[in-house]
Amino acid sequence: MSASKTRPIRWGMVGGGRGSQIGYIHRSAALRDSTFELTAGAFDIDPERGRAFGVELGLDEARSYPDYVAMFAAEAERPDGIEAVSIATPNNTHFAICTAALEHGLHVICEKPLCFTVSEAEELKALSQARGKIVGVTYGYAGHQMIEQARAMVKNGDLGEIRIVNLQFAHGFHSAPVEEQNPSTRWRVDPRFAGPSYVLGDVGTHPLYISEVILPHLKIKRLMCTRQSFVKSRAPLEDNAVTLMEYDNGAIATVWSSAVNAGSMHGQKVRIVGEKASIEWWDERPNQLSYEIQGEPVRVLERGMDYLYPEARIDDRIGGGHPEGLFEAWANLYRRFDLAISGNSRLAPAGVRNLVFPDIDAGLEGVRWVENCVRSADAGGIWVDYK
Amino acid sequence: MSASKTRPIRWGMVGGGRGSQIGYIHRSAALRDSTFELTAGAFDIDPERGRAFGVELGLDEARSYPDYVAMFAAEAERPDGIEAVSIATPNNTHFAICTAALEHGLHVICEKPLCFTVSEAEELKALSQARGKIVGVTYGYAGHQMIEQARAMVKNGDLGEIRIVNLQFAHGFHSAPVEEQNPSTRWRVDPRFAGPSYVLGDVGTHPLYISEVILPHLKIKRLMCTRQSFVKSRAPLEDNAVTLMEYDNGAIATVWSSAVNAGSMHGQKVRIVGEKASIEWWDERPNQLSYEIQGEPVRVLERGMDYLYPEARIDDRIGGGHPEGLFEAWANLYRRFDLAISGNSRLAPAGVRNLVFPDIDAGLEGVRWVENCVRSADAGGIWVDYK
Amino acid sequence: MSASKTRPIRWGMVGGGRGSQIGYIHRSAALRDSTFELTAGAFDIDPERGRAFGVELGLDEARSYPDYVAMFAAEAERPDGIEAVSIATPNNTHFAICTAALEHGLHVICEKPLCFTVSEAEELKALSQARGKIVGVTYGYAGHQMIEQARAMVKNGDLGEIRIVNLQFAHGFHSAPVEEQNPSTRWRVDPRFAGPSYVLGDVGTHPLYISEVILPHLKIKRLMCTRQSFVKSRAPLEDNAVTLMEYDNGAIATVWSSAVNAGSMHGQKVRIVGEKASIEWWDERPNQLSYEIQGEPVRVLERGMDYLYPEARIDDRIGGGHPEGLFEAWANLYRRFDLAISGNSRLAPAGVRNLVFPDIDAGLEGVRWVENCVRSADAGGIWVDYK
Amino acid sequence: MSASKTRPIRWGMVGGGRGSQIGYIHRSAALRDSTFELTAGAFDIDPERGRAFGVELGLDEARSYPDYVAMFAAEAERPDGIEAVSIATPNNTHFAICTAALEHGLHVICEKPLCFTVSEAEELKALSQARGKIVGVTYGYAGHQMIEQARAMVKNGDLGEIRIVNLQFAHGFHSAPVEEQNPSTRWRVDPRFAGPSYVLGDVGTHPLYISEVILPHLKIKRLMCTRQSFVKSRAPLEDNAVTLMEYDNGAIATVWSSAVNAGSMHGQKVRIVGEKASIEWWDERPNQLSYEIQGEPVRVLERGMDYLYPEARIDDRIGGGHPEGLFEAWANLYRRFDLAISGNSRLAPAGVRNLVFPDIDAGLEGVRWVENCVRSADAGGIWVDYK
Repeated sequence: MSASKTRPIRWGMVGGGRGSQIGYIHRSAALRDSTFELTAGAFDIDPERGRAFGVELGLDEARSYPDYVAMFAAEAERPDGIEAVSIATPNNTHFAICTAALEHGLHVICEKPLCFTVSEAEELKALSQARGKIVGVTYGYAGHQMIEQARAMVKNGDLGEIRIVNLQFAHGFHSAPVEEQNPSTRWRVDPRFAGPSYVLGDVGTHPLYISEVILPHLKIKRLMCTRQSFVKSRAPLEDNAVTLMEYDNGAIATVWSSAVNAGSMHGQKVRIVGEKASIEWWDERPNQLSYEIQGEPVRVLERGMDYLYPEARIDDRIGGGHPEGLFEAWANLYRRFDLAISGNSRLAPAGVRNLVFPDIDAGLEGVRWVENCVRSADAGGIWVDYK
Repeated sequence: MSASKTRPIRWGMVGGGRGSQIGYIHRSAALRDSTFELTAGAFDIDPERGRAFGVELGLDEARSYPDYVAMFAAEAERPDGIEAVSIATPNNTHFAICTAALEHGLHVICEKPLCFTVSEAEELKALSQARGKIVGVTYGYAGHQMIEQARAMVKNGDLGEIRIVNLQFAHGFHSAPVEEQNPSTRWRVDPRFAGPSYVLGDVGTHPLYISEVILPHLKIKRLMCTRQSFVKSRAPLEDNAVTLMEYDNGAIATVWSSAVNAGSMHGQKVRIVGEKASIEWWDERPNQLSYEIQGEPVRVLERGMDYLYPEARIDDRIGGGHPEGLFEAWANLYRRFDLAISGNSRLAPAGVRNLVFPDIDAGLEGVRWVENCVRSADAGGIWVDYK
Repeated sequence: MSASKTRPIRWGMVGGGRGSQIGYIHRSAALRDSTFELTAGAFDIDPERGRAFGVELGLDEARSYPDYVAMFAAEAERPDGIEAVSIATPNNTHFAICTAALEHGLHVICEKPLCFTVSEAEELKALSQARGKIVGVTYGYAGHQMIEQARAMVKNGDLGEIRIVNLQFAHGFHSAPVEEQNPSTRWRVDPRFAGPSYVLGDVGTHPLYISEVILPHLKIKRLMCTRQSFVKSRAPLEDNAVTLMEYDNGAIATVWSSAVNAGSMHGQKVRIVGEKASIEWWDERPNQLSYEIQGEPVRVLERGMDYLYPEARIDDRIGGGHPEGLFEAWANLYRRFDLAISGNSRLAPAGVRNLVFPDIDAGLEGVRWVENCVRSADAGGIWVDYK
Repeated sequence: MSASKTRPIRWGMVGGGRGSQIGYIHRSAALRDSTFELTAGAFDIDPERGRAFGVELGLDEARSYPDYVAMFAAEAERPDGIEAVSIATPNNTHFAICTAALEHGLHVICEKPLCFTVSEAEELKALSQARGKIVGVTYGYAGHQMIEQARAMVKNGDLGEIRIVNLQFAHGFHSAPVEEQNPSTRWRVDPRFAGPSYVLGDVGTHPLYISEVILPHLKIKRLMCTRQSFVKSRAPLEDNAVTLMEYDNGAIATVWSSAVNAGSMHGQKVRIVGEKASIEWWDERPNQLSYEIQGEPVRVLERGMDYLYPEARIDDRIGGGHPEGLFEAWANLYRRFDLAISGNSRLAPAGVRNLVFPDIDAGLEGVRWVENCVRSADAGGIWVDYK
């Protein structure tokens, strides 16, 4: 990690106010490498609470706004107005806020799902292209170095032709109807706020994006999905889903998305099986990658070691053995957002050439995947051509 | 393990001759507790080699037969003829040999799959009932004590209502077309000898049976299956398959059957998710059972400990901490075959009442499951009602 | 993590310049929660390189000093001068720089070992008391929440009387004489720069301090130590050492300090055995704590969960399941340094009352332990009364 | 595992009667491969109970003796008398029974410790040489294939020069004074029956012997030991001990022997650190061996795989992935006892040449080690020259 940077990007937030865990993560990640500077915010649906929170964070009171409309308007008038904004609000607001941000000339970093429909996502993509602004989506774990290692291994043929992809993000925290007591969970199971799915969008899209990073050459041909509401009051939204996918090269994938996998802490796991070898990664022990060549002993690759591909070393903050965790993965993402925004390199050229980050296409693909899953599930779990 | 038994059952084998790994396991299990005595055999398709092998095992030369037809006929004439026979031959011969054995008044222990079709299996069931003989099927790992613990936990409500069942038996030993060099593998991928499936029947039915032991109250309502021949020369037989199932109580299951999961040693895992807790078991570390109550720390249950249910202690041969493995699990099965055959108890009454072993119904259900999977897969992976 | 703080502490650094891993960690930790603000620095033995590095970090050029003498003098003259300084230089300079810092009225955060002898450490302690300044020592992993959990468990009697303490920090990165190629390692094995020990001070004091945090009631009565230089050119400094200790309550401890534990990544592990239960922690998987009650299944406690003691929840930045790592542990330490310096509370009162951090006594005890170990080892590994 | 053997060795037992776990293990191991045949026994201190137990096991009633004196006398008179005897009685009787057995011309397999003093052990060794009989000692886990792999790796230089040896056998089952309720434990903590040590002899000698197998070229030069009676009523016998050892090549070792490591199931672990790589083995997961080359990913070697050394494949009963456990390790030992007794080969020549088994020297070395440990501990934990 080099010290560096001429000037941080002026950055604002919508949502993520007091008590928001995700808001803290965004700030922690954006500020970690001094590539962004928190300049403005509209942190809360309650204007006064949001304003106070911004001041507490050290914002100029005038730039702690009652809502995003006011913020975008006022900041656009300033010569030192914000250049980028992160959106950490309930799902149903993402489309409108993203649109407004792009229209005000801002780069956008948005929580997933980006929006509710593919057509909305395509609209955002067109708008971002028209305005020349990036849209980043926070699939946070995708920023971990071992994902870069996995991508490089596949690219270099270490696994051979890919055959099977097993994806899961299956925690147990909502095994009981916790939303009855916990308002911050309640909106997630209400289609008005959450959109057409709960766990498919909320957790399943995470490993899906990781698979896209590792396996850029695979395209989904068709899929089928079955979803359940084990806590019945959550219907029509699902708290569990299984998706089967076929890729155009003949490989297959399974995706298990769940919030009712009792006793599981987090359960985001990715296993890629090739004709020669498999790799497996688990976000709860993110510094290790299991590399399993058929007929050889399983190898446990460790972050930070010389035997990794160079792509997996670019973001190291400390040597191997010391655990880097979620916050570093997120900070790595924000560094890539910065690189994409700044359009110039503070990394070695190799780093720039290989820049991979969850962009508007990643957001769009997540929405598309959920849409296809729901279409299949609501038709009784039939195979649907991917579109 | 008490010392005991008035007289061992006189027992013969068909197949399992020189170089057969599975033959060794059968003998090791049957002889372990002196409940069976090897009295006769027809060990090999090559009569002379089979005869020599039997003599080497200590058989009277006259009772080391050239084939099963001769053995069944001759033994039936003897006052001290065999009472039970184990069948360890290629799949395509199981039905004929089982039928002949039952017709000669023998109890039968057969490798899975019992036969190729449900109608054959029903025929065998009717025959076994008519003759009052048992048919046992060697789902070996089902004999491990921790499976009994899992069954007792579900029965006692420790998991609450069952929601999700994840089953897999996915090894990697056939990632490459090893059958080209290895005749003992070749018949497994030839439908004439293997029947309608490769991995579904060969490996998938193992965790399926374990799930039936643990979850006797769940009935499959419908399923869908997709199967692949990643080594193309294996078509139409699959070397990988994914099955989705719905139970009548609304629970769902996935089953991953594979021989191309590169780098995986064995990969038989069972995870049962209930509304309150989950349990997970892995045959490569069979002495541990993970018990995961939502909101509590994961507990690792160990074989042989006082905190287990009594059902999980009956078969202990040694105290906790010392690993029991595959051979003990198989020997436990053979002890249950003996109990079922002898119809009297050398275990405590509680043991007898709870006697669970892979019987003719287990064999039949395995065949039924494969038949349904193949029906679904061959129709393009559609949902089929379970029948 | 609440947003908060009226004003960050004005903070400087000595050492930790370009290419310094530890310098990056200090800055990352100090700046993470906006409790410190980097205001001045003397980053490098090479004045020009140090100055440039400070500017790159965003310092006012005038406050990027050629050396610590100049920095302390100049900053003391300023009304907005630094209030605290972190020292990340080779061991042999710690005593002089700490002394100078305290004499200039600065709070000090110093890399371990604080100095080379107990008498030096006592001198620093007297000086820090006379000046009313804190001295913090960066035993970074001690800031992890699961260490707080362990401390609370012992305090609450969950383990019963303590019997056995197994400590180790045994990596393998210096199995070969890497210092021949790597100047940044070379000073560590040279007594002029490293002091009287290599691995005892460099790695062994880490788990020692963690044991002091968890077991504040245990006092070392006597110890014996044997040390080796497996890479012979390192003599008289050791690259491996084993220490045995007896506590005044009759408990015993072992400490394995090593840089030649080939293949081990980091290897910092702490196991505490009580009459009722044991706990075990490993810094490479820091979010888990194994809790092993005799006669019950092992439980794996996870950071961030409601079943933990409140002391273990204070520093959470994100919910359970998401891995926090080294950087969060360090940032937690810096937050405690801030609390100790500021002398007022930005945490809940419970947090303040329980404030535990590696202070001057921790630094002194580390030096004392090394001194006793070396005294024992150099006398042939005899028992020495702890003094 | 080949079928084979002309005639089993006629074999008797002293001790190991009803309710004896270790008696069951001996029989299970001896009978597993039909290399021994149970022909006579004196199973119990209570003659009638012993006699009944023998009959139950299928012995001729005349050969189920009231005591070993009667058995040895009567069997020596028979042309078909026993040729070997296993001794599974309390420690204090081993010397007398071994002596009597050898004097009656029997091969002996004895539970450890072989006797209480080195001079007794040397007497037994002289006697066994004079009579041309083998004495085997049942360090059961030493029969596991992965120990052979470890031995071959060291021999082939895969680890380089050996530096550090960490041994432990530290369970927690006697954390509380369980002997107050449990007579079968009581004699173990009574010096009249147990001899000069409890855990040093009972558990510590197990990994010690494994280290001798893996590292035949290392000789102990001196050691120091400290032992504790955490359950005070066990004094003067220890329930915990730590031993430090120096080898003549400059390597060092630690041995942790314990019965009060609360919550640990079994805890027999061996780690060997060389200049290039380390290996680690744990008896609770005996099919895996961790192989850790400095600077490379950790490899997990699995029993039964082609990449192992041939010495590690000789005893395989089943392919890799399937767990073999304690019973197979013991059966492997008994096969080697048979080979040593029979003096001819039923294994491939390579197997015979490499025959390694716990013989009279292994028994003697265990006694010597305990004697040295006790000598050190009772002198206050001083270093003693090994003799």
